[in-house]
Amino acid sequence: MTILPQTPRTTAKRKSDRVEYDFDAICAVLDQSLVTHLGFVQDGSPFVLPTNAWRVGDGLYFHFATNGRFAQTLRGGAEICATVSLLDGLVLARSAMHHSVNYRSVMLFGVASEVTEAAEKNRVLMALVDKVWPGRAAIVRPPDAKELAVTAVFRLPIAEGSLKARSGQPVERHDDLALPVWGGVVPVVTVLGQAQADEYVPSGLELIQPDGRRTI
Amino acid sequence: MTILPQTPRTTAKRKSDRVEYDFDAICAVLDQSLVTHLGFVQDGSPFVLPTNAWRVGDGLYFHFATNGRFAQTLRGGAEICATVSLLDGLVLARSAMHHSVNYRSVMLFGVASEVTEAAEKNRVLMALVDKVWPGRAAIVRPPDAKELAVTAVFRLPIAEGSLKARSGQPVERHDDLALPVWGGVVPVVTVLGQAQADEYVPSGLELIQPDGRRTI
Repeated sequence: MTILPQTPRTTAKRKSDRVEYDFDAICAVLDQSLVTHLGFVQDGSPFVLPTNAWRVGDGLYFHFATNGRFAQTLRGGAEICATVSLLDGLVLARSAMHHSVNYRSVMLFGVASEVTEAAEKNRVLMALVDKVWPGRAAIVRPPDAKELAVTAVFRLPIAEGSLKARSGQPVERHDDLALPVWGGVVPVVTVLGQAQADEYVPSGLELIQPDGRRTI
Repeated sequence: MTILPQTPRTTAKRKSDRVEYDFDAICAVLDQSLVTHLGFVQDGSPFVLPTNAWRVGDGLYFHFATNGRFAQTLRGGAEICATVSLLDGLVLARSAMHHSVNYRSVMLFGVASEVTEAAEKNRVLMALVDKVWPGRAAIVRPPDAKELAVTAVFRLPIAEGSLKARSGQPVERHDDLALPVWGGVVPVVTVLGQAQADEYVPSGLELIQPDGRRTI
């Protein structure tokens, strides 16, 4: 069991929710979500960019256009914060102020490095395809040299960060419990809908479903 | 129809996805999501904090502990970026590099101001309850003076920002279309699960469902 170090920026000041630094628990959250919010400073302004990040080993990876402004900023050694949030439920209390949400979220801090070696770049990009749809990397056309050249891949080490979470029922003031108002949790669940083939799929060619069920 | 001004930081450099500045379209995204990722700089580091923001009129509101570090940072006039992202679908192409996601995301920029007047603070907090569960503000116990005092509410004007979106089928290279690989879109849908009452709900007291269906 690997535990990440606790640093000033990963130390929660508010103690009401659970905070942990366990590497495996952090990876489980990173692996479940397809949306990471990447924060950095550019021209003096904070930016929060939604992107499809993915994990390989102890790195979190993301890609941008090679000549884009985000790639330039990351190449310049910008400090970044990568946050992944999963909303698990609505917590409905009898008082307005004790409403809450159940969630899991990870914040990672650090500086990203660019992956430039072609074989490694190809390997991690194919891992992204398999994250989006497990098993698919083996059947799609892999990137060619030109496609790899216009895509910049960056790696943030999973070395400084934390997981925050809330679960369970509302926490209420004792004298509110008798109010004639329903209290409890309404789960929030993300599911996949019916696949919609495009016009080029020949009849009889079916989408291969990923092994196992995943939440996104 | 109100159109927000286009500024350097809201001008997309990459033109592949749709970008718009229409106030109503931006509000529709803000109103649909319960998770906003708030970016700001603190002690030189970018932070991206997931929070439950909500819109009233032309402001996006969020709350923090009155004495917490985030409230202090916002009170200091920090520039912030508030990003809301909705994942609508997985775009499965025949080539690795043309995989994508369908999404809608809003980025807002600016400086937040604190809402200090008690009646206004109460009004916008009750709007949050009604966002989480429409109709619920009318039946729960409203905040008392002490609860209002420990909660700081901030307002970011919806004045500088943009909406980015992708929808529709994969865009592929012509010579990939004949590959024997399924191509299309798999919708991603967020739904509410079965409500779980806590132990204090008397038998016969039911959760009042919000009017109409909402996606979260």
